[in-house]
Amino acid sequence: MEALKQKIIREGQTVGTGIVKVDGFLNHQIDVKFMNEIGREFRRRFSDIEVDKILTVEASGIGIACMTAPYFDYPPVVFAKKTTPSTMTEEFFGAEAKSFTKGTVSIIRVARKYLSKGDRVLILDDFLAHGEAAMAMTELVKQAEAQVMGIGAVIEKGFQGGGQKLRDAGFRLESLAVIEAINDGEITFA
Amino acid sequence: MEALKQKIIREGQTVGTGIVKVDGFLNHQIDVKFMNEIGREFRRRFSDIEVDKILTVEASGIGIACMTAPYFDYPPVVFAKKTTPSTMTEEFFGAEAKSFTKGTVSIIRVARKYLSKGDRVLILDDFLAHGEAAMAMTELVKQAEAQVMGIGAVIEKGFQGGGQKLRDAGFRLESLAVIEAINDGEITFA
Repeated sequence: MEALKQKIIREGQTVGTGIVKVDGFLNHQIDVKFMNEIGREFRRRFSDIEVDKILTVEASGIGIACMTAPYFDYPPVVFAKKTTPSTMTEEFFGAEAKSFTKGTVSIIRVARKYLSKGDRVLILDDFLAHGEAAMAMTELVKQAEAQVMGIGAVIEKGFQGGGQKLRDAGFRLESLAVIEAINDGEITFA
Repeated sequence: MEALKQKIIREGQTVGTGIVKVDGFLNHQIDVKFMNEIGREFRRRFSDIEVDKILTVEASGIGIACMTAPYFDYPPVVFAKKTTPSTMTEEFFGAEAKSFTKGTVSIIRVARKYLSKGDRVLILDDFLAHGEAAMAMTELVKQAEAQVMGIGAVIEKGFQGGGQKLRDAGFRLESLAVIEAINDGEITFA
């Protein structure tokens, strides 16, 4: 998605060779009009699938999922939680996800009642790096005996291997921008 | 907002006398089409104000803010963070917010560059209970020397006093549904 690449180059801030921050339009401040274009592009790429649920993970995935839902005729958006608030009392599906950026392991959870057997699920997330969060979401879907129709990432960091891992596992992955390398502040796309 | 009250009665789950869970359309699974109606209603109630930024707090506020932004001609949505990821290196505005539900105190933060002096800010959140999160957001706006144009809550729990506190402090508050009491599973609206 050319407009996305341009926006990453224009507004992204690189940190070392592994991180590009897009806090200005995706991870802290959200450019909602642009997210609407992101949603349109996900529909274009997944034009052939039917979707019963969109699954994402808090927090940055939520805006993306909400702006994409209208293009799939408003399926419910379910966001997996990284913590368990005391008001969340039902049974969950749960899967471990390591964050390489934060150096932590968290369990992401979805209440059982929001993923049903047979649901056709589109998984969306902001970044795909090592693929831990996306892989954990596919695990939640599997536990529910639902079906992953596809995985959509706004930005894939191709050099961190998560995309390859998901494709090798047989998932259909669409990344709107794939970064091949970050060197001296310069971003190279695949 | 009558449709919201009906939805709370139909889909909300009460816990004791203080909590109503609306995980089915707001806090875990999101009914995006309904959130679009929420956004339209916020615009109707705040039809007379100009907004440069919409400020909310992760995670449940994000969907609401994103679906409201189009009705205000797409101002940037900024979501305050409850934790500091290692990639967030800039200077912040920060304010304490107590969570009565979780029994915790957290600091919510916004990077300085996303709230500017003079910004006209609309604060949105899912629940208004004791008003801690909303009050903390007004504090962030104050630190930025920006201006709170209004505060919008989807559900106000009137009996927990946050709404009164904000109104007493001079803020314009619009709550789309105000719950007066929760008794034996029955919800009474103001």
